[in-house]
Amino acid sequence: MNNRYAIVLAAGQGTRMKSSLTKVLHPVCGKPMVQHVIDQLSSLQLDEIITVVGRSADEVRNQIGTKSQFVVQEEQLGTGHAVQQAEPILGTNKGTTLVVAADTPLLTAETLESVFQYHEQEQAKVTVLTAHAEDPSGYGRVIRDEQGDVARIVEHKDASPKEQEVQEINTAIYCFDNEALFESLQNVSNDNAQGEYYLPDVIEILKNNGEKIAAYQSKNFDETLGVNDRVALSRAEKAMRRRINEGHMRNGVTLIDPDQTYIGLDVKIEQDAILYPGSVLEGNTYIATGAEIGPHSEINNCTVGQDTTIKQSVAHESHIGNRVQIGPYAHIRPASTLSDDVKVGNFVELKKVSFGEGSKASHLSYIGDAEVGSGVNIGCGTITVNYDGQNKHLTTIQDDAFIGCNSNLVAPVTVGNGAYVAAGSTITDDVPDRALSIARSRQTNKDGYADKINQAKKD
Amino acid sequence: MNNRYAIVLAAGQGTRMKSSLTKVLHPVCGKPMVQHVIDQLSSLQLDEIITVVGRSADEVRNQIGTKSQFVVQEEQLGTGHAVQQAEPILGTNKGTTLVVAADTPLLTAETLESVFQYHEQEQAKVTVLTAHAEDPSGYGRVIRDEQGDVARIVEHKDASPKEQEVQEINTAIYCFDNEALFESLQNVSNDNAQGEYYLPDVIEILKNNGEKIAAYQSKNFDETLGVNDRVALSRAEKAMRRRINEGHMRNGVTLIDPDQTYIGLDVKIEQDAILYPGSVLEGNTYIATGAEIGPHSEINNCTVGQDTTIKQSVAHESHIGNRVQIGPYAHIRPASTLSDDVKVGNFVELKKVSFGEGSKASHLSYIGDAEVGSGVNIGCGTITVNYDGQNKHLTTIQDDAFIGCNSNLVAPVTVGNGAYVAAGSTITDDVPDRALSIARSRQTNKDGYADKINQAKKD
Amino acid sequence: MNNRYAIVLAAGQGTRMKSSLTKVLHPVCGKPMVQHVIDQLSSLQLDEIITVVGRSADEVRNQIGTKSQFVVQEEQLGTGHAVQQAEPILGTNKGTTLVVAADTPLLTAETLESVFQYHEQEQAKVTVLTAHAEDPSGYGRVIRDEQGDVARIVEHKDASPKEQEVQEINTAIYCFDNEALFESLQNVSNDNAQGEYYLPDVIEILKNNGEKIAAYQSKNFDETLGVNDRVALSRAEKAMRRRINEGHMRNGVTLIDPDQTYIGLDVKIEQDAILYPGSVLEGNTYIATGAEIGPHSEINNCTVGQDTTIKQSVAHESHIGNRVQIGPYAHIRPASTLSDDVKVGNFVELKKVSFGEGSKASHLSYIGDAEVGSGVNIGCGTITVNYDGQNKHLTTIQDDAFIGCNSNLVAPVTVGNGAYVAAGSTITDDVPDRALSIARSRQTNKDGYADKINQAKKD
Repeated sequence: MNNRYAIVLAAGQGTRMKSSLTKVLHPVCGKPMVQHVIDQLSSLQLDEIITVVGRSADEVRNQIGTKSQFVVQEEQLGTGHAVQQAEPILGTNKGTTLVVAADTPLLTAETLESVFQYHEQEQAKVTVLTAHAEDPSGYGRVIRDEQGDVARIVEHKDASPKEQEVQEINTAIYCFDNEALFESLQNVSNDNAQGEYYLPDVIEILKNNGEKIAAYQSKNFDETLGVNDRVALSRAEKAMRRRINEGHMRNGVTLIDPDQTYIGLDVKIEQDAILYPGSVLEGNTYIATGAEIGPHSEINNCTVGQDTTIKQSVAHESHIGNRVQIGPYAHIRPASTLSDDVKVGNFVELKKVSFGEGSKASHLSYIGDAEVGSGVNIGCGTITVNYDGQNKHLTTIQDDAFIGCNSNLVAPVTVGNGAYVAAGSTITDDVPDRALSIARSRQTNKDGYADKINQAKKD
Repeated sequence: MNNRYAIVLAAGQGTRMKSSLTKVLHPVCGKPMVQHVIDQLSSLQLDEIITVVGRSADEVRNQIGTKSQFVVQEEQLGTGHAVQQAEPILGTNKGTTLVVAADTPLLTAETLESVFQYHEQEQAKVTVLTAHAEDPSGYGRVIRDEQGDVARIVEHKDASPKEQEVQEINTAIYCFDNEALFESLQNVSNDNAQGEYYLPDVIEILKNNGEKIAAYQSKNFDETLGVNDRVALSRAEKAMRRRINEGHMRNGVTLIDPDQTYIGLDVKIEQDAILYPGSVLEGNTYIATGAEIGPHSEINNCTVGQDTTIKQSVAHESHIGNRVQIGPYAHIRPASTLSDDVKVGNFVELKKVSFGEGSKASHLSYIGDAEVGSGVNIGCGTITVNYDGQNKHLTTIQDDAFIGCNSNLVAPVTVGNGAYVAAGSTITDDVPDRALSIARSRQTNKDGYADKINQAKKD
Repeated sequence: MNNRYAIVLAAGQGTRMKSSLTKVLHPVCGKPMVQHVIDQLSSLQLDEIITVVGRSADEVRNQIGTKSQFVVQEEQLGTGHAVQQAEPILGTNKGTTLVVAADTPLLTAETLESVFQYHEQEQAKVTVLTAHAEDPSGYGRVIRDEQGDVARIVEHKDASPKEQEVQEINTAIYCFDNEALFESLQNVSNDNAQGEYYLPDVIEILKNNGEKIAAYQSKNFDETLGVNDRVALSRAEKAMRRRINEGHMRNGVTLIDPDQTYIGLDVKIEQDAILYPGSVLEGNTYIATGAEIGPHSEINNCTVGQDTTIKQSVAHESHIGNRVQIGPYAHIRPASTLSDDVKVGNFVELKKVSFGEGSKASHLSYIGDAEVGSGVNIGCGTITVNYDGQNKHLTTIQDDAFIGCNSNLVAPVTVGNGAYVAAGSTITDDVPDRALSIARSRQTNKDGYADKINQAKKD
């Protein structure tokens, strides 16, 4: 097989993003744009991937890691100049070199493979990836000759009225014969208004030398969308979201409203799960069959078991078992493990806890740094007092314990097996198995006091 | 009038749904697809509705109940075979038989009535319901003759380039002369790649017999959308949602963003109610004039009175009066009744309670199994201790009582008329009318203790 | 320069709105429709703006205030009659008069300026603002002559098939020569089915007099959208929202999903802020750079500092500093001031409080009417008991104090510098600096009590 290389242009300023973050690091569905491009290229088994970095070079390198080599374009002197920075590596190799901008996050490996194959089969010196645009205005038009090869590429502003009607546009993604590319780049000049070296000039040079310029039309205009400002960024995000969501739906997941469901690229969902509107699933989240998420729930880096429901809640970095009921308005913070049949109700916060099977914290509680056995009932308003101002301490609640409402469990403390804590108690010492612990005052009723209070306030 | 029958095809596998739930039971806006079809047919006063069931036959029968007769297609041998199962019932009746798939939830009675009428007026042996498709690819094209009748129906893959340009497509919904239908079915063979008996073969048989084949074009392509996978299911849901929402808007309800408002089929809303984005209204919910719901509220089976606001909250199976203020972040659980001018504030959960006029629970409370009079002020953090680990008990709070913050009311217990409960009290016994009840410890200040604690912790 | 006037038609019934609120007062993105029109006109420096009021005249006047003069149309006798009400003011002035309906909230000053200029340059007696409609059905078509002037305007129902194909439609917005307008209005009759005086009749009168009728086509069909029912209102809202959101994105704000982000007209957002789906920003809100809002947060009339995050929360009328962390599920009520590095966690309500630098209320608390110093840690479940049933009182918590969990601070009360409050205490008296204050009962464990309780319950 022919040698294949890719050059990723990631050095640009991206001034229209108006951002302190360099353009190609802006995320689409949680992953930086340049990483999308690199990941697609990586799946193609190329001989070399070379990323041209410039602005925020270190951040881009750190983002990509070892999936690419890097060359630095110190000055931003145009796309032709950017590609030239790869010459020390690709030198005079034989083979095909794909040049692609790092701001095209929607490109798929499938399309890139197709353009490589088409280029090789056509034995062209360059193959332009084109697309059919419903509204081509603003884009360079691809004018084909009778053989279907490229006669020329004309910028929108230079196009004749007849050329402006052409809907096939230049995506600025190309496969080059590697040798022809670097030879031709020698002859590109910066004699233009911007004083820059333009990569497309290579095409004109090759054309003038009588070389064949092929064009391969992408099946999908959206894929080639380049992001130059945040309006385009939001469109790329929407298109990527649609792609992700349709994949899950075709796999048997119900999305009540895919336009309002936000699923990260690494999320796995089994069939017959249901996602309600406003659901946000991120990170390495796994959702088992029969689970129902949302509306308006945010799940990040969690495993969620079968037939579990998470309504109007937030859960991060936790393991949630089968048939667990969460919400509405619960907050599961990291490092929590909930066994099967647990219930976490409204206004309950969990942090770094384990809950045994069937245990419940149904209302208005904070359970943090705690080990909770199975069959435990945590009453409304229970608080684990885990922080003394300097350190965090552990609360242990053993199987079948019953914690009365509005109790404080001042950690470190253990409530034993089957023990009871009376409502309104502040528990500072361990409670033995099956004991009742009580720490509250006796009630006194002062008759007529209400009238005195009212009178006093009037005076 | 001509006799009219309908055969609903509900036996299919629906494998592309990738679901353990049979396809026709998947809901659209909360109602199973087959039920949508049956309900539209039921409003037409037909002589017979016969549903052909197969997979999950019992579930489908249970869903539909008495609105249809049922015949069972034991083996899935094609749509022609499915229709044949109805022969024992419809036999050699005279009249018109509509055949419709159960996976077309958007069909309206109006369109079905139109196709019945057109069929009868044209005196055709079969009338095909067609639709104009913007993008007809994949669909069977309806090729008309000079009289406007159907010359033939050609599958996409068999269509000539000229036929592929035809945008009138076959919806696979037909009116048949009942006798002609069952006679022709005798002659349908399964001599094809799938080995199935296809209903559309009837059309060719009738055509070859010189019979008239009419075509009636639906005004609305969306109506005829068939659901084969969950992508199509989400599109049907979106189209149905738009239909519901536009109905409410034309009735005088403001939807700030109809694309983000989810209203069930049985919900009633008066004019001048306002629904904010992310509102979900389900079940037999009624919303009175001037009410404001959302953003991001879920209301299920509730009545909501005039000028009531429910912000960022969840309410189920409850009766909510006029000028009630709920939220943000409140949770009204089933069997609650809130009188006029009640206020339920943030992080408050109510369950099986009645609140008299003007009573308030403004923050961080759980009131469950309680009867609350009018003019009651329930302080922040109040908890009804309604569960002793075995049974639920009732809390009664009489008119004008004032419950101090962070109180526990250990049920069964009554706080009398105009009585006060001091903040931080756990109340286990009844509080007489106008009494002050207090159950807490006296405060002790230990000077310099902070320094000792800090020193100790350093040691 | 030519004198310029505008007449705003705001007297109509708007019966299709089905509302007790008069049509032109219905808001789009929070601002009444008529106000949108008046505000755009106001930026054009016209010599007079005259609003014709009728239904709900006082409310419309109060809404608009001094930006317009008003004339009253007592009876609704048609648009021509409405314009005639302005004759006493505009009389026989020389100049150009724009006539515009108050139900076109999307119109921009730029377009209105263009139609004024075109009218003046063409020296026409009337210039019709037209638009290109993808689907023109229902609209009056503008039929141009060979010079590009208006030959006639034909209503949809009167249009020939060829005229129905014309996509240039009449927006019902006109510039008139002022004298010609009022002269011609004298000749308009009400001899028609509705018995009304129609403004467009003026055009025919002028045409018949041999006057030049110009047409200026708007660049943007959406701008000329007239709102007659709530379906159209929701479309206007969507178009206005898109306009607002694209403006923020082009300024460097990331909107993860602009279709689900609701930003009021007066909100200011710095670059590199990120808005997650379901964010609602209203009033005079300011969001600084690096802030992250949402998902599903509502911010109204707040300033939000740099790098502050507000997740799944509600904040109104407050000042929030830099690097503050809010949410999920927090509620910041009006008149709160949070210094830098404050943390407000889940299920926390603040009202009329100041928080010094770095202070935290992380869980399940209500802090109202309070001055909180810097470095304060407010434990979970803390409640300021600010209301005694008659008055609100102030709680003061000084720097570096530590409030134990589930405490009540009964206001008026002061917790001194560096003081401790023990968990579960109800504090009624001031706590001196660096003291420990405790107000709770000692714990008693009753062994075996659980078994007795269980036995008793069985009996």
